[in-house]
Amino acid sequence: MRATFLYGAGDIRVEEVPDPTIQGPGDAVLRVVRACVCGSDLHRWHDFPATAVGRPMGHELLAVVEQVGADVTSVRPGDFVICPFGIQDNTCVYCREGFQTSCEHGHFFGTGGLGGAQAELVRIPLADGTLVKTGTVLEDTDEGLLNSLLTLSDVFLTGHHAAHMGRVGPGTTVTVIGDGAVGLSAVLASRRLGAERIILMGRHADRTALGVDFGATDVVAVRGREGVDAVRDLTGGQGSHVVIEAVGHLPAYEQAYGIVRVGGVISRVGVPQYESAPVGWASLFAKNITLTGGPAPVRVYLEEMLPDVLSGALDPGRVFDRTVSLDDVAEGYRAMDAREALKVVVLP
Amino acid sequence: MRATFLYGAGDIRVEEVPDPTIQGPGDAVLRVVRACVCGSDLHRWHDFPATAVGRPMGHELLAVVEQVGADVTSVRPGDFVICPFGIQDNTCVYCREGFQTSCEHGHFFGTGGLGGAQAELVRIPLADGTLVKTGTVLEDTDEGLLNSLLTLSDVFLTGHHAAHMGRVGPGTTVTVIGDGAVGLSAVLASRRLGAERIILMGRHADRTALGVDFGATDVVAVRGREGVDAVRDLTGGQGSHVVIEAVGHLPAYEQAYGIVRVGGVISRVGVPQYESAPVGWASLFAKNITLTGGPAPVRVYLEEMLPDVLSGALDPGRVFDRTVSLDDVAEGYRAMDAREALKVVVLP
Repeated sequence: MRATFLYGAGDIRVEEVPDPTIQGPGDAVLRVVRACVCGSDLHRWHDFPATAVGRPMGHELLAVVEQVGADVTSVRPGDFVICPFGIQDNTCVYCREGFQTSCEHGHFFGTGGLGGAQAELVRIPLADGTLVKTGTVLEDTDEGLLNSLLTLSDVFLTGHHAAHMGRVGPGTTVTVIGDGAVGLSAVLASRRLGAERIILMGRHADRTALGVDFGATDVVAVRGREGVDAVRDLTGGQGSHVVIEAVGHLPAYEQAYGIVRVGGVISRVGVPQYESAPVGWASLFAKNITLTGGPAPVRVYLEEMLPDVLSGALDPGRVFDRTVSLDDVAEGYRAMDAREALKVVVLP
Repeated sequence: MRATFLYGAGDIRVEEVPDPTIQGPGDAVLRVVRACVCGSDLHRWHDFPATAVGRPMGHELLAVVEQVGADVTSVRPGDFVICPFGIQDNTCVYCREGFQTSCEHGHFFGTGGLGGAQAELVRIPLADGTLVKTGTVLEDTDEGLLNSLLTLSDVFLTGHHAAHMGRVGPGTTVTVIGDGAVGLSAVLASRRLGAERIILMGRHADRTALGVDFGATDVVAVRGREGVDAVRDLTGGQGSHVVIEAVGHLPAYEQAYGIVRVGGVISRVGVPQYESAPVGWASLFAKNITLTGGPAPVRVYLEEMLPDVLSGALDPGRVFDRTVSLDDVAEGYRAMDAREALKVVVLP
């Protein structure tokens, strides 16, 4: 089969490799229907040290089950499934508490012998804890619904996780920093949770226009000090109850604590590209700011969201604005990095 | 009157100064019944740059109202009151949301023309928003109750704030880092909120013994890597749902993120003596850790706690283990800094 590997910064290659096979009784082998490129793939694509052994890429996918191990009971060959970006048993103590990304027996794609989703086939350990049937038949599912289902493997539920951890609800003013696919997903998720006002900070007019469709009530196209002042002006000087930081770079975090209201919450879902940051008296402490967030435990939210996606009440798949074939996946990375594409579907 | 001033690191002086007077119609002048020395006073006592103009010290007090301005309606001369460590109108938008330490019209002792509480008299602006009658008569109040009432101006409610912001409740495992008066208060507050298990980290046997009286179920007398391992051992390797960081130094914060459980909360009430700290993938993000806390909005909790203190059901005043006269306040600082005293009452 063909699969995508990263060999160093900017060096994405599609290679012919042996088909994955069932290795344990809890495994499934999936045939990928569609995968996509994530903002976190781009972080790696920027920074990855040159290597002789390529790193398998991709962690978001819709798929059809091809084979299952002897112990797998929840899916069978032919089932059309969503695969969350993290692998989990969904039974350990952390899974039961709703933090499946910290599963005691969990895996992430591309590590520990696991392949990537930007491929024709992929082996999934812990298939019973991980895979969720879409409840639809692939052949009957149109393009728009396929894209929306695909967002349930990561991007939309990452946006939802940000809003959930930030305790967005009726009456809340939310500011979302970042008009990438996660930021726009956070806008949609905040609307769903009843936010009263949603301020979207982003500088790409086509993206913020989709953000307005998703529920943003205000758009702020400036950043840094100017952006902080603009949000303060929009909120009567008080700032935003919740700030969702969907970028992952330090300046976005600094913007977040400039914008957040006394007693408010900064919720981060952009994977931080920094380790240390201001958290003392001047940034968080004096104003009793809460900092939260992390990798989204997609699995815990998936079944709750599926009916609204299937009915069309939620259309998070609109974040996809380009499709590439697996052979052209490098072009997908390039286009996303150049901000020519918001989020790219990969068709094996 | 006599009042306490800081002139530089370790340089505490009691000086004769003019009596404070009513300056605005919302002011009250209080005669201090008892004040005390706070851990945050000690941070200043360590670091304060030498100055020609002394900084007024002290922010915790019980008092009798001496005079009130024309607009003051909630207290009158002769009332025996608790004064929170922050001054607030208790009506602004942040006060209404329960963050009185960020009051739009607020003040802190020792700044902006306001004196300190380690004095015979002190002027309190915004008296109606700030002062709370004890509901008792000074002459009928015994030593133990006086000390417990005094903790409602800061230390016990700072411990409570830590537990409240950390969402301590039934079933929660809490670890409290620091066996100072705030840490011990956080133990007592966590017990009151129904915590299932309370691990106290501290190295002073007399203090941790009081912590056990207050509800600590386990004591860990080592710190750093060894302390983290000990708490992990006590919690089956999982760590603590809530970690209350009641110290304020970076190693205590580093200990906190080593101890906290997946999806858990670090709640800080020790004023951070650092601005930047680890918050990235390795420290907070990967495990979906929430960081919260700040200066305690004492005023919002005060009336809720008062009945239990008056009835003796809560005895937070046990944190006081030494009493000095105002003239000997410098000795109080020294004794607390040398860990000879846990917390020192100052009698004007």
